[in-house]
Amino acid sequence: MKKLIKGLREFKASYFNTHQQLFEQLAHGQTPRVLFITCSDSRVDPNLITQAQLGELFVIRNAGNIVPPYGATNGGEGATIEYAIQALDIKQIIICGHSHCGAMKGLMKLNSLQKEMPLVFDWLKYAEATRRLVNDHYSEYEGEELLEIMTAENVLTQIENLRTYPVIHSKLYQGQLSIYAWIYHLENAEVLAYDPHKHAYVLPQSQVKESNSDEMLVKQFPNCSLAINSTNIQQLEVESSSDFSQSVSERLPATPLSPEQLKRIYRGANN
Amino acid sequence: MKKLIKGLREFKASYFNTHQQLFEQLAHGQTPRVLFITCSDSRVDPNLITQAQLGELFVIRNAGNIVPPYGATNGGEGATIEYAIQALDIKQIIICGHSHCGAMKGLMKLNSLQKEMPLVFDWLKYAEATRRLVNDHYSEYEGEELLEIMTAENVLTQIENLRTYPVIHSKLYQGQLSIYAWIYHLENAEVLAYDPHKHAYVLPQSQVKESNSDEMLVKQFPNCSLAINSTNIQQLEVESSSDFSQSVSERLPATPLSPEQLKRIYRGANN
Amino acid sequence: MKKLIKGLREFKASYFNTHQQLFEQLAHGQTPRVLFITCSDSRVDPNLITQAQLGELFVIRNAGNIVPPYGATNGGEGATIEYAIQALDIKQIIICGHSHCGAMKGLMKLNSLQKEMPLVFDWLKYAEATRRLVNDHYSEYEGEELLEIMTAENVLTQIENLRTYPVIHSKLYQGQLSIYAWIYHLENAEVLAYDPHKHAYVLPQSQVKESNSDEMLVKQFPNCSLAINSTNIQQLEVESSSDFSQSVSERLPATPLSPEQLKRIYRGANN
Amino acid sequence: MKKLIKGLREFKASYFNTHQQLFEQLAHGQTPRVLFITCSDSRVDPNLITQAQLGELFVIRNAGNIVPPYGATNGGEGATIEYAIQALDIKQIIICGHSHCGAMKGLMKLNSLQKEMPLVFDWLKYAEATRRLVNDHYSEYEGEELLEIMTAENVLTQIENLRTYPVIHSKLYQGQLSIYAWIYHLENAEVLAYDPHKHAYVLPQSQVKESNSDEMLVKQFPNCSLAINSTNIQQLEVESSSDFSQSVSERLPATPLSPEQLKRIYRGANN
Repeated sequence: MKKLIKGLREFKASYFNTHQQLFEQLAHGQTPRVLFITCSDSRVDPNLITQAQLGELFVIRNAGNIVPPYGATNGGEGATIEYAIQALDIKQIIICGHSHCGAMKGLMKLNSLQKEMPLVFDWLKYAEATRRLVNDHYSEYEGEELLEIMTAENVLTQIENLRTYPVIHSKLYQGQLSIYAWIYHLENAEVLAYDPHKHAYVLPQSQVKESNSDEMLVKQFPNCSLAINSTNIQQLEVESSSDFSQSVSERLPATPLSPEQLKRIYRGANN
Repeated sequence: MKKLIKGLREFKASYFNTHQQLFEQLAHGQTPRVLFITCSDSRVDPNLITQAQLGELFVIRNAGNIVPPYGATNGGEGATIEYAIQALDIKQIIICGHSHCGAMKGLMKLNSLQKEMPLVFDWLKYAEATRRLVNDHYSEYEGEELLEIMTAENVLTQIENLRTYPVIHSKLYQGQLSIYAWIYHLENAEVLAYDPHKHAYVLPQSQVKESNSDEMLVKQFPNCSLAINSTNIQQLEVESSSDFSQSVSERLPATPLSPEQLKRIYRGANN
Repeated sequence: MKKLIKGLREFKASYFNTHQQLFEQLAHGQTPRVLFITCSDSRVDPNLITQAQLGELFVIRNAGNIVPPYGATNGGEGATIEYAIQALDIKQIIICGHSHCGAMKGLMKLNSLQKEMPLVFDWLKYAEATRRLVNDHYSEYEGEELLEIMTAENVLTQIENLRTYPVIHSKLYQGQLSIYAWIYHLENAEVLAYDPHKHAYVLPQSQVKESNSDEMLVKQFPNCSLAINSTNIQQLEVESSSDFSQSVSERLPATPLSPEQLKRIYRGANN
Repeated sequence: MKKLIKGLREFKASYFNTHQQLFEQLAHGQTPRVLFITCSDSRVDPNLITQAQLGELFVIRNAGNIVPPYGATNGGEGATIEYAIQALDIKQIIICGHSHCGAMKGLMKLNSLQKEMPLVFDWLKYAEATRRLVNDHYSEYEGEELLEIMTAENVLTQIENLRTYPVIHSKLYQGQLSIYAWIYHLENAEVLAYDPHKHAYVLPQSQVKESNSDEMLVKQFPNCSLAINSTNIQQLEVESSSDFSQSVSERLPATPLSPEQLKRIYRGANN
């Protein structure tokens, strides 16, 4: 605690003094451009990993970066999403999972939680679609690799859930909203973004080259994005292979994903 | 989006490279010492304002830093709290509100929300105790000042709610858990901490001098902490006034809180 | 009632006698190939309009052919869907709305229902995403045309909801499940099927020509179907125009949908 | 799918052309006289077995033709019932179970469902009254016969549940509503109707002779119907025996229900 209070002093002495103009401006209101939904895990810091300034990220954090389907819960997620889209007119949403996620580990041994952590057990019901999919289609995987797959699939599951909110449903209509799936690998500080056209998580950097239009920087889910001309897709396929193997090697030094598994994640992505 | 992706690169090139040892260590697990519950507001960055490192803060963020009472909702708050206390054995909780909070503004004009933002309207039900207390006891205040009071009272309300969780209730019973109420003033980067003995929000720095024991750094709620010897309180009262006027002047140059209002906040705290 | 009881006799005397073999076979179990979700409306008869035999359609019927998101309700919809997919291994789902739908009319004057029909009012919460989308994007339409649009959008909304069920999520993965959106026009006995590639409801017959593969008979949602080679799409676009104008004229003799509106429905489809 | 689409064409070419007047009339609204609640089973087709025309039956279908008690769920059943009675002013309800019902089989081995089909498991909670009654009073039965009894009792259970809805409760109060319990035997296309005075399921045909008044065609539940003059009951008892043995023999050639069992079914009805 002592350390945190010292930190408060340092923050004011250093950061505040060098950014006074920003603070004056922020006092008049916030205009964040991104809703960032991630896990409560202490090893994930949205502003640090994106180097975003104060005022740029509107953040929801809970165990497992879970978004319950519309109407399924009366907790803060739905209200905060509604506020972000309706009141702040945010047009970009990132759901960011991360490696070594405790909630995903819990999902792998769900029954053991019921007695020990009943609220966590109940909460993971909203990741049941992830658990079910992984149990049905990845039975041959285990340990670290299975955890990696579950984490990757869960972000996609939560995007499905997110789409059931009226305010999201309406904004997606006419492509006024973009939704991105990220995985942060806390062992190597790497973020991979889901690319629905490559049907895999890839280095978002690889996608920056493709275009200058913000719309194109990170591929969005087909059903939340404008059509992409085939040429563009060609380019993309071409350079993707290299990018992808690269991303995979950085991501799973021990257990690179097999092409077969990528196919699975691809199909999973197709949900 | 482009900016965030560039940020990811910078983060890895700079921060990651200079903290590789930290990342290796974090890959083996997290041992955060603090559960930090705050608002989704883009102008609040828990790690920045406390200068906390990766791995130090387990974070819950939703609109209004609200903690619904145990059993009242089935959203992520309860599960994440349970996980923090039960699985991570965290022993310190900070609930941090902030000035210019949109959720608190919503609480001041609640009915207008019902049609426009039904989920937010429902969510603010869990801050109704704040609204009621302020309506009953602060009727003569309005505008900025009323918002300030509502924000200050709401953190105390949410601490009451937090106390209803079985896992919290049990840890508090043996003084194994400390709960702190903070308000972050985003216009001047100042944090004030609630001091139950002064019955007011004060500069936490003022309290650091008093003692070296971490237990004493910030006064905890009597019902979550061991008794404090009266001498200590004397000292505390003595030096508090100056500290406090200081904190007030920094905090509300336009509208310093009157002693009478402090009394009210005190009473509010006791609700 | 007398009429129905006479009907029972006639049914046994006529249909049963001419289909004894079918009945013997059905007594050993059902193997329906389609889950047909439609409205309770007395003017909609799934088996009649598809000329399906006993044993072919597993049927869910409620007011408004609504599928609440997973976890949002504890009524029969989720359980019946789970049974159909899990126990009966059904691989095709049709959600069939219909013109002149009372539930959709209710959605257009929702508030008036709260007092008169509270359960209907609550139930229509699961079509709120439809109401919101239509209010936001079709404000210039009214009456019959607005009802038509709401009905068309609602089937797409319910497909979004359907996708949140774990058993659906898992089967969609690997394209083991196809979901179709139909609108039955009870004034002219016409069924239009949603074509995600044309982004409009069209005569399903028009699509039969395109291909002999069952997979291709009715276009499925991109994310539940295999890729389609561009040639095929070309053909499809070519013939679509005529088919579509035809379908439109049959569908709305009074108020043909404008190209602009089709664009909207297209984009809506993109959700 | 191809077959169904061909069916759509045939339906329009044949049925629609020969019933154009009916379709024109139905386009102006529906005035169904019966709410028909039955199972989603593909082998049950309400309109076919009753030879009812389009517009005559308002239909609810879910797994097990279950009607949760008022307030127990927030699914479609309650809303659809409310709409049928309140908006459509329907005055007759048939709950129709059927032989070889998968949901009833599930009820016989409930625990095995919890892991495999959790939603079905939860749903069957609303048939628990059936399971309990059968376990308590039919312990000596098993297999096919037990399934037959469970199915018969469940329809009576669901009628009890139906009676808990405010709109039903109020209409029953003045005898404005009649509720009928049917069992459809899909192996022989036979429907038996529950006769509260015989305390057994009998051929509804047997009752047609008795009277010309529609009210009397099928005996209603004493508590949902006007008083019946004793003479009428006498007649009824007299001819019932023969009718009944007939119905039983047709229904359970192998295992005719003992008078003792009928007594039980009767009592079951009173639960």
